Order: sequence, then C-alpha cells, then structure tokens
Amino acid sequence: MQSFSSCCPLLVVLMPVSAFMEAPPLASSSSTASGADEEDNNGGSCWRRPPERLRLRAVRIARKVGQIARDDPRRVAHSLKVGLALTLVSVLYYVTPLFNGFGGSAMWAVLTVVIVMEFTVGATLSKGLNRALATLVASSLAIGAHELASLIVPTSERAEFILLVVFVFFVASAATFSRFIPEIKARFDYGVSIFILTFSLVAVSSYRVEELMPLALQRITTIFVGVAICLGTTIFVCPVWAGEDLHELTAGNLDKLADFLEGMETECFGEDARSRNLEGQDFLHAYKSVLSSKDKEDTLITLAKWEPIHGKFRFRHPWSEYKNLGTLCRLCASTMEALASYVDILTKYKYPEANPEIWLKVRTTCGQVSLHGARTLRELSSAVRSMTTPPPTNNDLSSAMKAANGCRSELLEDAALFQMMHLAVIASHLSDLVIQINKITESVDNLARLARFRDRPEKTRNDVVVNVKIVDDK
Amino acid sequence: MQSFSSCCPLLVVLMPVSAFMEAPPLASSSSTASGADEEDNNGGSCWRRPPERLRLRAVRIARKVGQIARDDPRRVAHSLKVGLALTLVSVLYYVTPLFNGFGGSAMWAVLTVVIVMEFTVGATLSKGLNRALATLVASSLAIGAHELASLIVPTSERAEFILLVVFVFFVASAATFSRFIPEIKARFDYGVSIFILTFSLVAVSSYRVEELMPLALQRITTIFVGVAICLGTTIFVCPVWAGEDLHELTAGNLDKLADFLEGMETECFGEDARSRNLEGQDFLHAYKSVLSSKDKEDTLITLAKWEPIHGKFRFRHPWSEYKNLGTLCRLCASTMEALASYVDILTKYKYPEANPEIWLKVRTTCGQVSLHGARTLRELSSAVRSMTTPPPTNNDLSSAMKAANGCRSELLEDAALFQMMHLAVIASHLSDLVIQINKITESVDNLARLARFRDRPEKTRNDVVVNVKIVDDK
Repeated sequence: MQSFSSCCPLLVVLMPVSAFMEAPPLASSSSTASGADEEDNNGGSCWRRPPERLRLRAVRIARKVGQIARDDPRRVAHSLKVGLALTLVSVLYYVTPLFNGFGGSAMWAVLTVVIVMEFTVGATLSKGLNRALATLVASSLAIGAHELASLIVPTSERAEFILLVVFVFFVASAATFSRFIPEIKARFDYGVSIFILTFSLVAVSSYRVEELMPLALQRITTIFVGVAICLGTTIFVCPVWAGEDLHELTAGNLDKLADFLEGMETECFGEDARSRNLEGQDFLHAYKSVLSSKDKEDTLITLAKWEPIHGKFRFRHPWSEYKNLGTLCRLCASTMEALASYVDILTKYKYPEANPEIWLKVRTTCGQVSLHGARTLRELSSAVRSMTTPPPTNNDLSSAMKAANGCRSELLEDAALFQMMHLAVIASHLSDLVIQINKITESVDNLARLARFRDRPEKTRNDVVVNVKIVDDK
Repeated sequence: MQSFSSCCPLLVVLMPVSAFMEAPPLASSSSTASGADEEDNNGGSCWRRPPERLRLRAVRIARKVGQIARDDPRRVAHSLKVGLALTLVSVLYYVTPLFNGFGGSAMWAVLTVVIVMEFTVGATLSKGLNRALATLVASSLAIGAHELASLIVPTSERAEFILLVVFVFFVASAATFSRFIPEIKARFDYGVSIFILTFSLVAVSSYRVEELMPLALQRITTIFVGVAICLGTTIFVCPVWAGEDLHELTAGNLDKLADFLEGMETECFGEDARSRNLEGQDFLHAYKSVLSSKDKEDTLITLAKWEPIHGKFRFRHPWSEYKNLGTLCRLCASTMEALASYVDILTKYKYPEANPEIWLKVRTTCGQVSLHGARTLRELSSAVRSMTTPPPTNNDLSSAMKAANGCRSELLEDAALFQMMHLAVIASHLSDLVIQINKITESVDNLARLARFRDRPEKTRNDVVVNVKIVDDK
C-alpha cells in the first residue's frame, strides 16, 4: 500500500507532462513501464533521462504556465482566492467553538468551498444558491420521509428501513429524470444533484443516527457557512464579474470585425497577397475567434443573469440582448470569411493580372466599404465599452452602402448578365455540394480503414467502378 | 425555521413550473407574493386559482415529460439505475459489518454514487477513475504533509497547525491554477477538484483526528466501493455507450443530408414552393440539426475514448476520425443551406416565371445532383451503420459530378460572363457585409435603449445625420 501510494503522485505528475508534450501515448507508457522494471530507488529511470531533455521540457511547461497567467492575470488571483477561502474555512474549523460541536459535519464546509468556488461571481452565486436551497429542501423532505416511515411502521425497525430505501429509490429516480428536462438542466442541474445527495444522506443516516434533526441542521449550517465564505471571497477580493466579461467580449468582437476590415485592403489586395497563403494570415484569426465565440457568450449570459447590481450594470440589465448582437457579429464574420476566400481564389488564378482595370475598381470599392464599415464598427464598440448611446445613424455607414451598391449596379447593368450570375452561383453551389460529398466519402473510407470495417457482401458492391476525378473548374 | 422549510418545497416546485409556462417572471412572483399575504392554510392562494388552469398546466407538463421519456427511453432506464445504485449503497450501509466500522465515512460511498453516476458508460468511467485516482493521490500527499509538519515542529501543536494551513493554501492555489491549463481541464478537471477536496479534508482533519491513516483508508475504501457500484450498475444494467451514440449520430447525420437532397426537388422547385416560407419547411430542420451537432459530437468523442471494448467497437477504435467526418458533414450542410436559400430567393422574385426554360434546366440539374448525391450518402450511412467497407467509388457520385459540371460549363461558356459572375459575387458579399453592419448598429441601438446607456457627450456626436435606407437589390 505504502509503495503504491508513494509511486502514484509520480504517475499523476507524469500524465499532464505527457499531455503537454503531445507524445504518442504508447511511447510514454512504455517508457514508464520500463522505468517500473528498473525501479530501485525513489523515482526509477525517469530521472536518468538526458538532463537536457528534462530541462527543455521544464522550460516549455514553465513558459506555457507563464503564458496562461499573463493571458489573464485574474486566473492567478482566482487560484489564490481559492487558497484563501480554504484557509479561512480551515482556521474557522480550528478555532471556533461552533465547529467543535459539529464534529464530522464540519467537513461539509470544506467540501462546499472546494465545490462552489468558481471563477466568476455569477457562477459562484449560482452554485452556492443552488446548493444552499437544495440542501434545505432535501433535508426537510428527508426528515418528513423519516417521520412518515416511523408513523406508518412505528414498531418494526426493519420495515422502516425498507420503507426509507423505497423512498430513496423513487425520489432519486424522479429527481434524476427531471435533469433531462431542458429548463431544469439549464438552471438547476447542480441543485438537483445536491438535492438527491442530501436526501439520500439524511434518509440513509436516519436509521443509524438517533437525533436526525441536529444532523440535518449541522449539515445546513455548515453548508451555509461554506457558501458565505465563498461568496465573501469571490465578491470582495478582486471580483470577476461574468457580466463585465460578456460586455467586454461583445465590444471586443466588434473591434475584431473592424480589425478585419482595416486589414482587408492591404492583406487581400496588397502586393504580397499573391505570394502567401490566406490561411496563415494573422488578421484572419480575428474573425475566426468571433465565429467561435458562441459557447463562451452563452455561458457568460447564463452566469451574468445570476449576478447582482455591480459597476455600470443596473438591476435587470438586458443580458439577453447580447445574444442577438453576438449572433449578428458572427453572421458578419462569416460573410467576411466568404469575401476574403473569394478574393483569395481570384488572386490565385491570376485574375488581377488579366483584368487590371476591373480589379482596380473592385479594390477601390472594397477599400471604401471597409474603411467606412470599420469606422462604424469602431464607433459601436466604443459606444458599448463606454456605455454611451451610439450616434443615431452615421455617415460612414451610408458611404459604405453607396460604395457597395455602386459597384453592384455597375456590374449588373446588363439584365441578362445579372440572371446568369444568379444561376452561376447555383451551379457553383451544386459543384461544391458534390465535392463535399466526395470528401465525406473519402472520410468514411478512411474511417472504414482505421476501424477495420467488415468487407461488404459481394452482391451489394457496385460492379462498375467509375473513377471520379474532381475537376476544379478553371 | 419549521415554517420556512415547509414553505420552501412549494417554492422550488413552483420554480420549474413557471419555467415551463414561460410566464413573465414578474407576474409569477407577484402572484406568489399576494399568495403569501393571504396565506392562512397550507399552500395559500395558489390552490384557489381556477382549477381548469391548474389542470391544463399539469397536462402540459405531463405531456412534456412524456415526450422527453419517449424521445429516448434510456433516460427512464438511467433514472431507475441511479435509484438502484443508491438503494444498493444504502443496503450495503445497513447490512455490512464493513460499514459499521467506518461510521461517518460510509457517507462517502453515497456521495460518490450520486456524483459519479452519469448517463453514459464513458462519462461514469471518466468521473469514477478521476475520483478514485485523485482521492488516492491526495490522501497520500496529505498524510505526507502531516508527517512533514510533525517532523519539522514535533512539539508545538499550534505551529503544526499553521504549517498545515500554509500547505493547504499553496496546494489548493497551485491545483486550482492547473485547471486553467487546457490539457488538464479537458481530461482531469474533475480529478483536480477532488484532489483539492481530499487533500484539504485529510490535512484539516489531521489536527483533530488522532489516527489519520485509518481515516484516509476509510475514505479511499468507501469511495472505491461507491465507484465500483456505479460502474457495475452502468455497465451491466442497460448500458448506454457514448461510442454507440457517436456512431449513430454520425450515420444519422449522413442520413439527414440525404433526406435534404431527396426533399430538395419537390420542396424547392415544386408547385407550392412559391407560396410558403422556406423557414417553416420540415425538411430544413434536418440539416439544421446537422449544423448544430458539433458540441454533442465533441463531448461524445471525449467520452467514447474512456470506454472499454464493447459491441462492435474494438480496442483503439479511431474515435477521432468521427470528428473529421462530422466537420465535413457540417460543411456540406452549410452549402445546402446556401443553395436552398438562393433557390428560394429566386423563386420569391418570380425568376422561374420569367425564364421558364433556363429554370427547367436548373431544376433538372438539381434533381440529378440530389438524386445521385442522396444515393451516395445513403450508401455511406448504411456502410457506417453496419460497419462494412463502403464501395470503392460509386457510379452515383460520378453522375452527380457530371450533372453539376455540365450545368456549370453550359452557363459559363462565355469567358466574360464567367469573370463578371465572380465579381458579382464579390459585389453581393460586399452588400451583405454592409447590411449586416447595419443590423449590428440597430442591435447596439436596441441594447443602448434597453440598458439605458448614457447619452454621448455632444462633441462626438455626428452633426449630419444621413438616413441610410438599405436597398434590397431587385
């Protein structure tokens, strides 16, 4: 036992390290295994690797950790806050006569602090209130169940036990099922799990513990103390508000869209645009991060709704409105993506060299649209950041609109051309579709190979095999 | 206290009910408040509402619950399994001499069952192993810390206490920080939280409890018993495998894409396509659900990797490959979306009536592409479902490719036309961009109104206000 437990920390330390290194899992596990064979003094062969490699690993991990801390210094603050809250609860446990009387139950305060402390105030509040309320309700119900059981079968202890187990079975099953209801899952999932936990604990204890009421009260009080310590630490020591993060995320998304527009003319139409790959360009990362911001935004909106009035945010701040704005930003970013990749394709196929005049016109239009569009977006982002009303409707947007419409109408003077354009777009979508289905086919083939699917029975196999070659038009 | 706890279940029961009803929160809270004023006998005015309304509510909730159960009957099985596991652990607690010796620690088994039992085998395994390993490591470390503290300051109990609190502070802070590292967050988040919990519990207990080793052993044993009961119940009673769900999701996505293609000709080009709205059409829901399947897929992939060999899935099944296939399916679905909305726009603008011949050609091409494309996708989905190798390359795909390329080359015979088409697409993207920026502006205005942003200082307000009217071309 002793040797196993002294070896295990090493294993756990190694696991994250190998995750950093992105080494194939087989290789790392085999080296650990050989280490275990030769193990004679503390640590085994791990420590006999070339020290240079170890040093490099350590440096890489240290750099990564440093980067995570620099990216958001509040993470360090949060870690210290968790340490602080745990220290507080430990000290309380040690010095307070209150806790002396509670004995084992005092542990629930420590447990509560570890589980409830979250990064943002909203998350901590949501978990803390869920936990406190669920404990209260479940304890009352469990005591009620116990009383009911002793009323029904006052004499037989065994019958009371069976009755309680039946209660636990049905309450736990019903509560577990309620977690599948989306409305409950979204807001009370943690609360329901604590409800099941407390109900089972109190009900199960009730045939061992003589005085059930004090036990329930102890559990409730210690959990309340734990929640209070958590809330105190999160709210009063460097608070991290989900609402502020959401507000900043929204303003940041507007800025990133503006960044893209500002970079578009030089990056897509500039001299060196032809020589390099669009994928590798920095300014594209901006809108990519806008496109992938949905999950973070949804979480922050849910949490922000739990938070009390703070800073610039009043009571009933319209948090849901950020969802609409976020959706629009993502729509805008996907149009930008389509535009940039389209320009890139034309550049790759030497279109600008072949039609310098038309290209100049397109470039000018793009330049104007992006100049004015970027200004509008910057104005909006600064309005959101400073929480001032944006100007009613601004000049820039109308200029951008004029430029875009001008270009379009110039290109579309010919009605026949315009109709053909629409049809050509359909044709191009159809081609895309087929190309994508082909890629899906290749992917399934790949999966079949890797997962070693069985071969098809001969009768369903296509007899005539036609080699499809995807002809990239142009 | 007694009256509060007896009133509280009512509150909690009301909360989910109001969530179902989607009633404005203000209205429901005011009715509760007025109920509390008049409250004289158990329940207050809630029970004096028109019984018809109550009955309707109950029926609606019952219908919703029934629907959730019918959608996936395994949910009912899972709920009963949680009840079963809790019953098992309660019975163990009652009858086993093992548990008698453990006293308070036996509760950890109940707690473990409630926390670790998850819907799929993969999730239960991941949580159970995380919990067991973290408990083992943290207990060993905490005992080590205790031994170290007694070695350093063997005489003073107070100094030992301070030393332990310092240990708890640093270990908890460091472990909390490690949760921000993406690699650890993805796989060991729950384990780290249990590590902090156990370390704090054992370290904090160590200056109250004389015999630390038995306490740690009790905790480890009870948690192992809990995890074993959970794993036994999840694996041997109606197991739900994340891997199977993932496999079925992937095959289902391929089927949904085929559904769309099969429905496209009648739904987009049929007689009644002109009269109804595209958004309301059923067959569109198919690809919408493909587009939104990413989160579910990612979760299932993570969980499937934890699962042992089962059913059709061998050791080292290439779970990551499902990610690529899913991405390709979503790409295909978004092209379908673009195509369907484009056809819809042209139909709305009476294009088919104006150009019946060209439209017939487009319709025929779409019909051919979707017929052959759908067949290919059906073949692939049945290959995935039955885990048989798909046919090397099939006729259908080459027919689809021919049809799509034929339509395209016919439309693009004229080189000038082809170039203009590309430019027209850029022009249309630019217009879209401006329209989207305008929508963003409106959304920020809306937010500013709802959140009552301050007015801008006069100097930065635009003096000339131009009314931008978005001219939808055509």
